[in-house]
Amino acid sequence: MRLARSTLSGPAPVAVPANPGPFQLAPGRTALVIIDMQRDFIEPGGFGASLGNDVALLEAAIAPTKALLQTWRERGWPVVHTRESHAPDLSDCPPAKRSRGSPGLRIGDPGPMGRLLVRGEPGCEIIRELAPMPGETVIEKPGKGAFHATLLNAVLQAGGVTHLVFAGVTTEVCVQTTMREANDRGYDCLLVDEATQSYFPHLKAATLEMITAQGGIVGWVGQLADLLAALPPSLRDGIRAASEASSVLPSMPLPPLSAV
Amino acid sequence: MRLARSTLSGPAPVAVPANPGPFQLAPGRTALVIIDMQRDFIEPGGFGASLGNDVALLEAAIAPTKALLQTWRERGWPVVHTRESHAPDLSDCPPAKRSRGSPGLRIGDPGPMGRLLVRGEPGCEIIRELAPMPGETVIEKPGKGAFHATLLNAVLQAGGVTHLVFAGVTTEVCVQTTMREANDRGYDCLLVDEATQSYFPHLKAATLEMITAQGGIVGWVGQLADLLAALPPSLRDGIRAASEASSVLPSMPLPPLSAV
Repeated sequence: MRLARSTLSGPAPVAVPANPGPFQLAPGRTALVIIDMQRDFIEPGGFGASLGNDVALLEAAIAPTKALLQTWRERGWPVVHTRESHAPDLSDCPPAKRSRGSPGLRIGDPGPMGRLLVRGEPGCEIIRELAPMPGETVIEKPGKGAFHATLLNAVLQAGGVTHLVFAGVTTEVCVQTTMREANDRGYDCLLVDEATQSYFPHLKAATLEMITAQGGIVGWVGQLADLLAALPPSLRDGIRAASEASSVLPSMPLPPLSAV
Repeated sequence: MRLARSTLSGPAPVAVPANPGPFQLAPGRTALVIIDMQRDFIEPGGFGASLGNDVALLEAAIAPTKALLQTWRERGWPVVHTRESHAPDLSDCPPAKRSRGSPGLRIGDPGPMGRLLVRGEPGCEIIRELAPMPGETVIEKPGKGAFHATLLNAVLQAGGVTHLVFAGVTTEVCVQTTMREANDRGYDCLLVDEATQSYFPHLKAATLEMITAQGGIVGWVGQLADLLAALPPSLRDGIRAASEASSVLPSMPLPPLSAV
């Protein structure tokens, strides 16, 4: 049996220049998904650093991701943050995952910013620059993929989301795994090049190639500036433009974000 | 709440030399998972070839995969075959997946070996050399990952499977996606280097590196000969050895495979 396709109406799609071809973004039905921008992966002295990784490589993703986050917030579009995290009793951590780590650096072990990847510990928090706001979805995920054992798909479906724009870390691990899950579930996915980073730049590059190969077998990859330039203006942009164009409203205050 | 870990007894694990370290294979609880060894991807004149890919690159995976299949069959260990396939009415094919293909080469379109990736069509069949036998699981998967929208996890759990050995095509698409899903679900996974191939050898190489990076963040990669040498002998091997060592049983016939 073939179910009728949902015919939710909405603004016309906008074409974002991307690889391997334009990404047809659906305004209002496109969620921004920010993967695992957690202190333990990004900040010096955290879990990632303790594994010997050069965490400074990930810092480059922060400002572009912040630009995306602000853009989505100004438009009132759906935002999802994910965290790789486990319950304090590790009941959601498969033994095969925990035993993978070196002794003393396993999930749940004491680390520089609290117990590693355990919810409620400082290192598990999302970095201050990208802290979630009320109303934004935060997915606590026990796996690399954000769809596995979470409510992510249910939340996206309930919100009428059909397209996903991805940012976060690391490219070839949790971002790629989640994007593959999303692709199988029928979402059109765009990964923003500057907004994702890896401890291993050549593996980031290989991931972008894998995603876009064979006509976009996993999805699309685009540049931040191209995406931002393609989007329709926000209400805030409209007010700003009107304010600049009119001498009648020279000092009209911008509305608070929550009202946009 | 932390559930007690299953304590199914079984033979002692065997250590298989692998990257990034020995893979502890659990005899009898390790399934062989053969991904998408279908005519349309591997044979000249099929879907893969029509997309401009050099399908001859995939042929190298056939003999190593057959060696694994025979090894698993001789031991009576669980075998899973997967096929990327869709229902004839495409009710299980997300529009986002179908529209990704070029017009005329989309899923369900007529191809050199029947409608592309549609169950029941000749091109969708598993190649003759690796055809499933009665009692082996065949997973029809609508996605790249074999766990999405299938009974694979239920079958593995019901069979007490804890470890997976992977073969099949293509490495960076369906094999990698499925291995990532399996890793998140708590299976220890080993990919056999010679038994997996890609249309793009450098993307196969990058995938093997991604899997084994950071202490095996997705799993292990091993060589066929190392795996075969590490496994305990099958009943058939035992009879063969006894036959060679004893003049009393010089011509004892081997039992049929189904009795092993």
